[in-house]
Amino acid sequence: MKILLIGGTGTIGSVIAERLQNDDDLITVGHSSGDLQTDITDPDAITSLFEEVANIDAVIVTTGSAPMKPLNELSNNDFLEGVKSKMMGQINVALTALDYLNEGGSITLTTGILSHDPIPQGTVLSTVNNAVNGFVIGSYGEFIQHGIRINAVSPALVEDSAEALGDYFPGHTPAKMEHVANGYIKSLKTCITGQIIDID
Amino acid sequence: MKILLIGGTGTIGSVIAERLQNDDDLITVGHSSGDLQTDITDPDAITSLFEEVANIDAVIVTTGSAPMKPLNELSNNDFLEGVKSKMMGQINVALTALDYLNEGGSITLTTGILSHDPIPQGTVLSTVNNAVNGFVIGSYGEFIQHGIRINAVSPALVEDSAEALGDYFPGHTPAKMEHVANGYIKSLKTCITGQIIDID
Repeated sequence: MKILLIGGTGTIGSVIAERLQNDDDLITVGHSSGDLQTDITDPDAITSLFEEVANIDAVIVTTGSAPMKPLNELSNNDFLEGVKSKMMGQINVALTALDYLNEGGSITLTTGILSHDPIPQGTVLSTVNNAVNGFVIGSYGEFIQHGIRINAVSPALVEDSAEALGDYFPGHTPAKMEHVANGYIKSLKTCITGQIIDID
Repeated sequence: MKILLIGGTGTIGSVIAERLQNDDDLITVGHSSGDLQTDITDPDAITSLFEEVANIDAVIVTTGSAPMKPLNELSNNDFLEGVKSKMMGQINVALTALDYLNEGGSITLTTGILSHDPIPQGTVLSTVNNAVNGFVIGSYGEFIQHGIRINAVSPALVEDSAEALGDYFPGHTPAKMEHVANGYIKSLKTCITGQIIDID
């Protein structure tokens, strides 16, 4: 299976890459590292990436950010930053994949626990994570008509980020990296679609 | 109770206005009609509105749009249209309300059934409805710290829109306008917060 893993050099992406490297034809994509580079905030750069790599069976996105700030400091621009990256970055990958993926292909996006389990300063992430979940729920029926599946993996705070980010997530139990990677493998290699795969 | 009803001349807003007009100090706001006018896609216009009307106890938003199109015709710009109106329009009202509402005040936003019950051509609405639900879930805990409640009412296809929009919603049973208005009254006059109030 030929797989494009956008964010493949990041915290989650590198664990998925390790799981997939033996059995699949894996292409890792980063912002400045990986086999290829792209900028998911630029729809034209995404199109160029799919033009460059032909005959793709699956795309996984494990990148995209959004600012964390107290509610009373949040502005329209803070939200638009998250919209441009974690929300529309991933949605534009999926829209582009519709034109380029092989029939029977799959798309796997990344959201996160804040969509339904909020923390202080996490409002933009709760918003854009839920937007991407809404995109998956809203679009999967039309993706089926094009022979393509789409799911989102929604992990809890992940183990490998717990040291850096744990203070933002009081009382949250980090998800094991193996379990997180399982979510992506499930989306990739079963036949489910339209699912938000929670990894706690 | 002094209530700002943004979208108060629309299909849902006018039914809420009728329910509230006897017992409350109601100010209806429209794009070109109502007691006052605003443009929710312009954050500065929202601030001006709250500057103009002092001493507000509650704000309800029943306006905001997003384009409906088949998935394979959707572009980044179609999503950004929905982001600017139904998503950030409502979120910017809530962020502004944080600075202007009286203590004990409430904010009620409007999402819709497509967040979890999709239809063809409805992907942008599923996305932005879920984004606003995510905003409510993500922010309510910090709104509590400022003495303000926030909820979203998420109606099914509403009865008064069934003739115009019913063909887009095959097999959907329209929600009675009285039940839809009940959702807003519940958000306004109980003490719940952080809730997505589904009206089927």
